[in-house]
Amino acid sequence: MGCEVHALGRTPVATPGVTFDRIDLLDTARADWNRVAAIEADFLVHAAWIAEPGAFWASPQNLEWVAASLKLLDAFTRGGGRRAVFVGTCAEYKWGPGLLEEDATPLEPSTLYGSCKAALHRMVAAAAKPLDLSYAWAHLFFPYGPGEKPGRLLSDVIRRAMRGEPVDCTEGRQIRDFIHVQDAANAICRLLASDLEGSVNIASGDARPIREVVRIAADIVGRPELIRFGALPTRPEDPACIAASVGRLRDELGFRSQYTLEAGVEATIEWWRKQNAHLRAS
Amino acid sequence: MGCEVHALGRTPVATPGVTFDRIDLLDTARADWNRVAAIEADFLVHAAWIAEPGAFWASPQNLEWVAASLKLLDAFTRGGGRRAVFVGTCAEYKWGPGLLEEDATPLEPSTLYGSCKAALHRMVAAAAKPLDLSYAWAHLFFPYGPGEKPGRLLSDVIRRAMRGEPVDCTEGRQIRDFIHVQDAANAICRLLASDLEGSVNIASGDARPIREVVRIAADIVGRPELIRFGALPTRPEDPACIAASVGRLRDELGFRSQYTLEAGVEATIEWWRKQNAHLRAS
Repeated sequence: MGCEVHALGRTPVATPGVTFDRIDLLDTARADWNRVAAIEADFLVHAAWIAEPGAFWASPQNLEWVAASLKLLDAFTRGGGRRAVFVGTCAEYKWGPGLLEEDATPLEPSTLYGSCKAALHRMVAAAAKPLDLSYAWAHLFFPYGPGEKPGRLLSDVIRRAMRGEPVDCTEGRQIRDFIHVQDAANAICRLLASDLEGSVNIASGDARPIREVVRIAADIVGRPELIRFGALPTRPEDPACIAASVGRLRDELGFRSQYTLEAGVEATIEWWRKQNAHLRAS
Repeated sequence: MGCEVHALGRTPVATPGVTFDRIDLLDTARADWNRVAAIEADFLVHAAWIAEPGAFWASPQNLEWVAASLKLLDAFTRGGGRRAVFVGTCAEYKWGPGLLEEDATPLEPSTLYGSCKAALHRMVAAAAKPLDLSYAWAHLFFPYGPGEKPGRLLSDVIRRAMRGEPVDCTEGRQIRDFIHVQDAANAICRLLASDLEGSVNIASGDARPIREVVRIAADIVGRPELIRFGALPTRPEDPACIAASVGRLRDELGFRSQYTLEAGVEATIEWWRKQNAHLRAS
């Protein structure tokens, strides 16, 4: 797009060509919102939220992120902002056996995380016209890939298998749509540059049982015998299927994933191998 | 209830026995939330919101009130708060011809005001358990009565009729549930003292066409000839019917209105007469 890019956050980014502005969005009282407005950004991608594995589902900090997001939106529009993409979640939808589809599946979240994202979503949708804002809401499904934090499925499976430790799993019959982080980022950038309005699922469209994802990872690591399906109990509140309709993403946005699940998992394992090599070398 | 009562706000209240704490909730950055927490209130009624006649429906300030409400909720729970009543609105519901009913009528607001109230509502509902909070959500319908601001239906009709000026109205076929402000306040207090959870409509249960309400007021003022129904066009977005089911309020809370519509309008006119007498005397 040939844009001047600013990244706002607590942790500096070292991406070439990106101006980093240090701000703790969550500290709504002390954050310098006028400085954010003064950037006079035309476009906004809002991807900041609590994401601590496990904890994020029910943490009261989700409420604080709604307040922080409203401050960010206010600063952005005061600065003349015209177009925004908000990163939402598949957890806003009423989960069920079929494909989750924008404008068809009801927003009936089962978690505080999903409720807070959906609440912000509804407010943005209602405020867009009075704020003269063009917006899209990206329902992000299950991103994975290089840089993933420990405590999430693939990072844990890969690291344990690489260390030669047993990998205890549930039966893994739950179906999930995983999308490689680079594909997710590309889709969000393309969405930002488009004039598509409203909800768009960001997903691969290739939902699989978790056991298949785990097996692919263990096979590539070369330690399939370490996987112990059924060693952990299936949590009754864990939904059987979270699968995305990608019609809008594909047909209206013209987006195609670059990574198959197999290639994406392989690239992720490659990244972990390099991390380990760095650790051994240092 | 025999409670120590604190009122938080920008404008001092002179109610005997009430401690006033000056705070601008909307100035979330500078408001002293620790001072709010330090009150260590057990109970909270949150009735603050933008209410400027006309403007409140679509003002972006509705978003700021959501952020302010989240800060207030945080301060209240940090201070050990146990039970809260939030004043919501009939504008959260999907408006339609039947009675609007808690847990049956979908929350599908048509306005930014309704969307923001509903967004907060959903967040409070989802956060109550993690916050260990008992809460009720009061869907307030159309309050009227002494002290009403100019720019609202009854205050304008009464004042114009008392001044002998023509009162231009729409056809006034729209049905609305009006509740006297004292009845609304009593219902909210009783709700706070109860352990009822979730949504409760705060309404009279006696919905009437607006033309009937206007006629009652003009008759009591003694100037029915000043009313000109049809002088103003009916706005197409104005819903035909906003009427409340009061089953929960009546049967589960055991609440009965003290004012009939006729008695409530009469009391309101009496208040305006006193205001005018004061003005003339001063």
